[in-house]
Amino acid sequence: MAKIKSTTPYAGRVKLLQKRIKGWPADALLVTNPKDIRYLTGFCGEDSWALVFAKSSKVIVLSDSRFDVEIDREAPQVKKIIRADKGLADELLVICEKKKLNRVGLQGGYVTLNLKKMLDKKVGKKRLVIVEDGMIIQRSIKIQSEIKDIQKAVKIQEAAFLEMVKSLKVGQTELEICAKLEYEMMMRGGGGASFDPIIAVGDNAALPHATPGKTKLKKNGMLLVDWGSLYNDYASDMTRTLLLGKPKKVQIEIYKIVLEANEAAIDAIKPGVELAAVDKIARDIIVKAGYGKEFGHSLGHGIGLDVHEQPSLGARSKGVLEPGQIVTVEPGIYLAGIGGVRIEDDILVTESGKKDLCSLPKDIKSAMICI
Amino acid sequence: MAKIKSTTPYAGRVKLLQKRIKGWPADALLVTNPKDIRYLTGFCGEDSWALVFAKSSKVIVLSDSRFDVEIDREAPQVKKIIRADKGLADELLVICEKKKLNRVGLQGGYVTLNLKKMLDKKVGKKRLVIVEDGMIIQRSIKIQSEIKDIQKAVKIQEAAFLEMVKSLKVGQTELEICAKLEYEMMMRGGGGASFDPIIAVGDNAALPHATPGKTKLKKNGMLLVDWGSLYNDYASDMTRTLLLGKPKKVQIEIYKIVLEANEAAIDAIKPGVELAAVDKIARDIIVKAGYGKEFGHSLGHGIGLDVHEQPSLGARSKGVLEPGQIVTVEPGIYLAGIGGVRIEDDILVTESGKKDLCSLPKDIKSAMICI
Repeated sequence: MAKIKSTTPYAGRVKLLQKRIKGWPADALLVTNPKDIRYLTGFCGEDSWALVFAKSSKVIVLSDSRFDVEIDREAPQVKKIIRADKGLADELLVICEKKKLNRVGLQGGYVTLNLKKMLDKKVGKKRLVIVEDGMIIQRSIKIQSEIKDIQKAVKIQEAAFLEMVKSLKVGQTELEICAKLEYEMMMRGGGGASFDPIIAVGDNAALPHATPGKTKLKKNGMLLVDWGSLYNDYASDMTRTLLLGKPKKVQIEIYKIVLEANEAAIDAIKPGVELAAVDKIARDIIVKAGYGKEFGHSLGHGIGLDVHEQPSLGARSKGVLEPGQIVTVEPGIYLAGIGGVRIEDDILVTESGKKDLCSLPKDIKSAMICI
Repeated sequence: MAKIKSTTPYAGRVKLLQKRIKGWPADALLVTNPKDIRYLTGFCGEDSWALVFAKSSKVIVLSDSRFDVEIDREAPQVKKIIRADKGLADELLVICEKKKLNRVGLQGGYVTLNLKKMLDKKVGKKRLVIVEDGMIIQRSIKIQSEIKDIQKAVKIQEAAFLEMVKSLKVGQTELEICAKLEYEMMMRGGGGASFDPIIAVGDNAALPHATPGKTKLKKNGMLLVDWGSLYNDYASDMTRTLLLGKPKKVQIEIYKIVLEANEAAIDAIKPGVELAAVDKIARDIIVKAGYGKEFGHSLGHGIGLDVHEQPSLGARSKGVLEPGQIVTVEPGIYLAGIGGVRIEDDILVTESGKKDLCSLPKDIKSAMICI
């Protein structure tokens, strides 16, 4: 029997997944997405697979010698198979035969055509069924320890932001600002940036996905910062836009509109609300103000082990908000040659409504600073 | 006609790919791997596709409004299609019909089963052929500008390492060392870490893929650092192992063996040498010394836009080294409870032999430092 400490969430997560496997029907699920493997076992390595069985709670992790010690440390409860000369698929075949697995489920969102071809050849086409779309869907509902980790990541990124703002200077490049921000997050115990930060100076802020470069900070103009931290492998994700010196009228105007959209959408969040409806609330405000075309992305997305995960808050999203989900709310307006504003918070859906996990101010006064 | 500046490499790269497309046979290749899109066009965004035609040198980039301005900046030579309400596959169908494409190639290493299912439905199963294994293979041969970028990334990471070493202190955590290293790289113009650095203190160095954590530096023991920088999107990748204070005999012993393996393998590098033979040279030295089982990974891999790309230097690798390839040489020995040593350089294969792009010392004297 597995020695599962009752304090780890893995046994419960596997149990939940087992119920789904029985319903598909399949005898086991081959988990090839590393984040799902982390979620189900605690193991953080790469180039490895996990096998979850419908009838046995013991999870098998297939890996190589690079991760031998790491699996013992991170996932002592699993059965570990370290492949030597054989490939992962060869080891999988041995398990299939030994355990008499007739149908093995594959994650359609993570298995490539090449991998499928190889599995067909090695394990047998008839044995393989595509049963799972992308990540293990139960991941979208967070338990208390996950909420704590994300809250901690938010605290780290917010403290680092305040430290970075203090050090802003005319002439500093986007890359230098980025260096400072990442440094301050890691020095506070963050496990690194949860994604490559977007640090956009001046009219670079008009690019929703700008890459930090050599553009220098000026006394006047915009500074859009979209950044996040990891904590215990969980990601946070926020955006703040600063208006430096004497902002232009239009910059103040779009800031106010985006803030209104951000706050209205957050207000609307509670269990049972349609995902698409939340997007619509923010979008309607921006459309009404005449900037609909300049808000070209979805309102938000779930965060967790992935910085983008289920649920998506977009115009075409299906489904409703559920307690335990944590979603970003990040409306934006982008004007080529002028700049852009995006304001993004991380919102936990609670039983009775919502909780904004972020506390950095976002009112227009706080956004207007002089350097 | 495309307005291609003669100084950009994109037209030449597309031309080379067109030759291969004609040989497959297909009318076009749907490029879904973002690094390949960057390689062929200069555009660095995500959630976008590129279409390269057998008969027309004009590349189409399919994207969304988030990347509208960015495509103009980074890839002015392409034909840009910004999807609005329609999905990427709907836009692809329009192009297929307009351009009378009978066969569209898919990258088997990057298209998931879910994406294929969707493309089958929207674009037509008969039209789709799997023609390309993973990345655009020509990427493994670097041109002068790519070599320059990787060399610059190496210089940045080496200067940052020296600065980090100066600041080492008893009690510092792996995360703090990591923060310093990444900060120093970015402050020197690096575009961020090319992968999550491995900073392993003490017996954590026995984990080839250790994640930086809260383990504190002691006066004595090992410090394994595997890190790299980006420069202009190109990745470098090195490892140095430091022996702090008074190292144990076995630590010095394995350091010397790994160094010998590293140097012997680098010595052997020149065009025409079998990839597997280079791995064997290093492995034989380690096996002979009695640590074969403790060197559980391949000797090295290509670097470029991806930090792991073709060619692979492993026991089962097929093919020979070619001029213009840049490969890592990174033998290691890992002993649970004791620590580990890995020494890694980036080696350019030249017409006549090789050039080590790295210059940080790796002799045992340089590795032994006191903090």
